[in-house]
Amino acid sequence: MVKKPAPDSTRRSERSRRAIYGAALALVAEVGYAKTTIEGIAARAGVGKQTIYRWWPSKADVLLEAFLDLGEQAAEQAAERGAAQGAEQGAQPAAEYAIPDTGHLAADLKYVLRATVDELLDPKFEAPSRALAAEGVVNEALGRQFVAQLLEPQLQLYVRRLRAAQDAGQVRPGIDPRIALELFVSPLAQRWLQRTGPISYEYTDTLVDYALHGLAPR
Amino acid sequence: MVKKPAPDSTRRSERSRRAIYGAALALVAEVGYAKTTIEGIAARAGVGKQTIYRWWPSKADVLLEAFLDLGEQAAEQAAERGAAQGAEQGAQPAAEYAIPDTGHLAADLKYVLRATVDELLDPKFEAPSRALAAEGVVNEALGRQFVAQLLEPQLQLYVRRLRAAQDAGQVRPGIDPRIALELFVSPLAQRWLQRTGPISYEYTDTLVDYALHGLAPR
Repeated sequence: MVKKPAPDSTRRSERSRRAIYGAALALVAEVGYAKTTIEGIAARAGVGKQTIYRWWPSKADVLLEAFLDLGEQAAEQAAERGAAQGAEQGAQPAAEYAIPDTGHLAADLKYVLRATVDELLDPKFEAPSRALAAEGVVNEALGRQFVAQLLEPQLQLYVRRLRAAQDAGQVRPGIDPRIALELFVSPLAQRWLQRTGPISYEYTDTLVDYALHGLAPR
Repeated sequence: MVKKPAPDSTRRSERSRRAIYGAALALVAEVGYAKTTIEGIAARAGVGKQTIYRWWPSKADVLLEAFLDLGEQAAEQAAERGAAQGAEQGAQPAAEYAIPDTGHLAADLKYVLRATVDELLDPKFEAPSRALAAEGVVNEALGRQFVAQLLEPQLQLYVRRLRAAQDAGQVRPGIDPRIALELFVSPLAQRWLQRTGPISYEYTDTLVDYALHGLAPR
């Protein structure tokens, strides 16, 4: 049996962990990935660098977890907003980490993409995400690690929602959900990453409508 | 009247210009944008740095033109391939810098996206493009300059082709072409930039079919 740590030590660890995440995200946003070091994160977090090395093998791993944590916080906030909204509108609150399934595919996709717009426009998220995305473009190993552990799990939520829609007859049976989701996810990603255009709820709503109904006349 | 330079001097200038483009692209691919300098480009191209400063105000401008030139060469090669293919198949060769309009929207979009796949998988293009794209993600001024001068003009070719398709009744009248093009262009861009999935002709063909006909049953 693993001995449970004393409550005091757990609280101290949790406090250090949060300080390290915050320091890692702030540092990468300020100086970029290449110049972010374990030493720099430790100094900024006010912990010894051995504390970091004890928990994470590399700076990429610290940053990965810091981002996972940021995403979890954003999802919790969105779930709270959804619950508040649901209370007002009588709708079901969105399950944490899942795309809601109200039976209305367009509405569910629009709801989640609007939440993503909020996240992308949140300054807390913007600068560290850009620093990491930029490094991933030129650093293949890091890029692949972050896609596998951070981005792809999010995309798989869309795969699941689109499969449910296929089962419900709302998406054509021959469609590959993993490609289909890119019709509305990738345009938003590119506008954000490369600043090819403004981002808004109206824009993501339009993407969903175009993707579901197609550009050609029906 | 502007005095025409002697043929010898024109040839020399043209040779220097090409050497500078090549050096700029090679250097940014090797050391990244931040460490690329006018001095480094000049040394590698075998010209004096004053030669570069005489023609371009900054390294961003040298790189921009080097990329425009790379794109022009790719378009010329694609046009040659298109002409060769056209001779075989009796089709019209693609006009340089334009998206073909054979009257068949899906075929025309697939043709151009396949050419883009070739370009993205070309090692000559890959490394310098990644270096520049990565810098654009974190360097807003550079990102906006490259979008305005390099990326958006290419996207406007799709806008024009989609407007022609609207006039021909092949795209619904209410559709905004500038958003519509992102349904097939952005997924390819994201897979390439972030390595979220493999790139192939089959993939881009599928994107065009999904975008035109929609995910929902008809």
